[in-house]
Amino acid sequence: MAHSMSDAELKDIYTFALDVGRRAGKILIDGVDKRTGESSKREEGEGKVEEKMNAVDIVTQTDLDVEAFVKDEIVKRFPEHKFIGEETYSAGASRDYLIGSEPTWCLDPLDGTVNYTHLFPMFCVSIAFCLNGIPIVGVIYQPVLDTTYSALVGYGAWQDDSHPHKTRKSLPLVNTPKQVLPANAPKGCIFSCEWGKDRRDTEGGNMWRKVNSFVNMAAEIGGRGGKGGMVHGVRSLGRDVAAGICILREAGGLITTANPPPNPETDPIEEVRLGSRLYLAIRPAGDSEKETGRQAQERVVRETWKRVLKLDYTRPGA
Amino acid sequence: MAHSMSDAELKDIYTFALDVGRRAGKILIDGVDKRTGESSKREEGEGKVEEKMNAVDIVTQTDLDVEAFVKDEIVKRFPEHKFIGEETYSAGASRDYLIGSEPTWCLDPLDGTVNYTHLFPMFCVSIAFCLNGIPIVGVIYQPVLDTTYSALVGYGAWQDDSHPHKTRKSLPLVNTPKQVLPANAPKGCIFSCEWGKDRRDTEGGNMWRKVNSFVNMAAEIGGRGGKGGMVHGVRSLGRDVAAGICILREAGGLITTANPPPNPETDPIEEVRLGSRLYLAIRPAGDSEKETGRQAQERVVRETWKRVLKLDYTRPGA
Repeated sequence: MAHSMSDAELKDIYTFALDVGRRAGKILIDGVDKRTGESSKREEGEGKVEEKMNAVDIVTQTDLDVEAFVKDEIVKRFPEHKFIGEETYSAGASRDYLIGSEPTWCLDPLDGTVNYTHLFPMFCVSIAFCLNGIPIVGVIYQPVLDTTYSALVGYGAWQDDSHPHKTRKSLPLVNTPKQVLPANAPKGCIFSCEWGKDRRDTEGGNMWRKVNSFVNMAAEIGGRGGKGGMVHGVRSLGRDVAAGICILREAGGLITTANPPPNPETDPIEEVRLGSRLYLAIRPAGDSEKETGRQAQERVVRETWKRVLKLDYTRPGA
Repeated sequence: MAHSMSDAELKDIYTFALDVGRRAGKILIDGVDKRTGESSKREEGEGKVEEKMNAVDIVTQTDLDVEAFVKDEIVKRFPEHKFIGEETYSAGASRDYLIGSEPTWCLDPLDGTVNYTHLFPMFCVSIAFCLNGIPIVGVIYQPVLDTTYSALVGYGAWQDDSHPHKTRKSLPLVNTPKQVLPANAPKGCIFSCEWGKDRRDTEGGNMWRKVNSFVNMAAEIGGRGGKGGMVHGVRSLGRDVAAGICILREAGGLITTANPPPNPETDPIEEVRLGSRLYLAIRPAGDSEKETGRQAQERVVRETWKRVLKLDYTRPGA
């Protein structure tokens, strides 16, 4: 059964998500303060509880606190909506089965846990609202930078929308004119990738395949048996982003699977499934004389598929 | 000949560097605005000049503008000091020969050029002041985050020192108690690495050696012929940081060469040379019952050296 909502309802949900995301971010910063010099000011009194907790305890507790806060706000405001958080994932099922057609909130209270543990500032609160299985509202709040990325389908994608002091900017930031993708892409592109948690030292295993894919993308043109992509730079940040799908699409990005199909040149470029573990995202692209932005994005998808190896995440522990 | 300066002179230089770094950062942000929606507001009038420049032109021009601004401020205030910037490097000599014992400023006006070009927010102005060949003042200003990291030898290392609104924090952020390094490091550590520009597809070449080093650090314990390091995460940000040496040391970090000596277990851990291209930095570490923080850092240096391959940057174009 397909659900529908009025524009006013959706705008209300979007505004709510922006507000609750920012307030949740403050809880993450409080968790940082408990581990930094801030707590030394409270040696005698209220600081005592924290001193008994180690860094990992604080991270775990902060994660739970943020989830409880956001869930509570949603239940108060939208009691009829479904809610999926970290605790729901932990119950075991894949996300595929969790997100149906009914109005559903999907929360990652602390996206970038390893970064947060190491106080590497790339972590955020990630909130998505899905209808008919599609994320139509996305809010990502990065509290160290006090920066929000957000989107509501049909309303655009924004940096710092509704921020009390900052001026909002339309995403993508470079949009006048919208930049075209390089003719010889992936050369000239930034290639962003994640090493992941499967570190088994097995030839042909996931880590081996990933590394070979990364090297293909990085190597000089003509290298690696013709697979060399000579990307401009390789970056790894350690976040994955759920609400990001909504924001990226609304900004004009394309998102599909990173697992190449049997024929990368001609097989259809399918819409990404929520709950997939392998995403390939291409930034918004302008039209050029030779092709539309969408055609350019599809070209880069195929050029990437030709260089990356299929991964196998069916085995447990992967 | 060894030079000396009074505490008052050094404090004055440090305060000046903080101020000029922040003002230089504003020029970087102006360069971003020229490429974003901000310029669309000026379609008829002042925006015309920018419309004729493409993104790469703007980046190059911004780089030059920042260098000219900082150099000019230094010449006005400290006319007797030596100045080394990007234009000086371009002249060809290695940094080794450029930095002598006399008071010398070392500027990277746009540290993270590739990031800046792609509007990936990890870029900064990096200013160091050296005396007797040692960086004793370091200021790194990241304008998108409006965040400063700085140090003056003997005065400490700080986040947001002298910021008009923010409260300064002592570096490292987690310092009460100072965190110890994991007993089984590099397991449990974040491994930060750069792919670099040498992408030649040659077995035994720099790219090949780097990738093998990265995989050694990432692989499960027991894998890779015993070299598996099972680091907690692998990160690549695309910056290198000159002033960072001063800040990291003042915060209690250790910095040495990433090129392993013949015997990683016993060879001396030498101080890093300015102008070296390969750095290995270990974060500040607390004492534990078994070892001092310095002993722990040296342990992690040796564990890393055992897992990484020596690189060869003597050939041109590397």
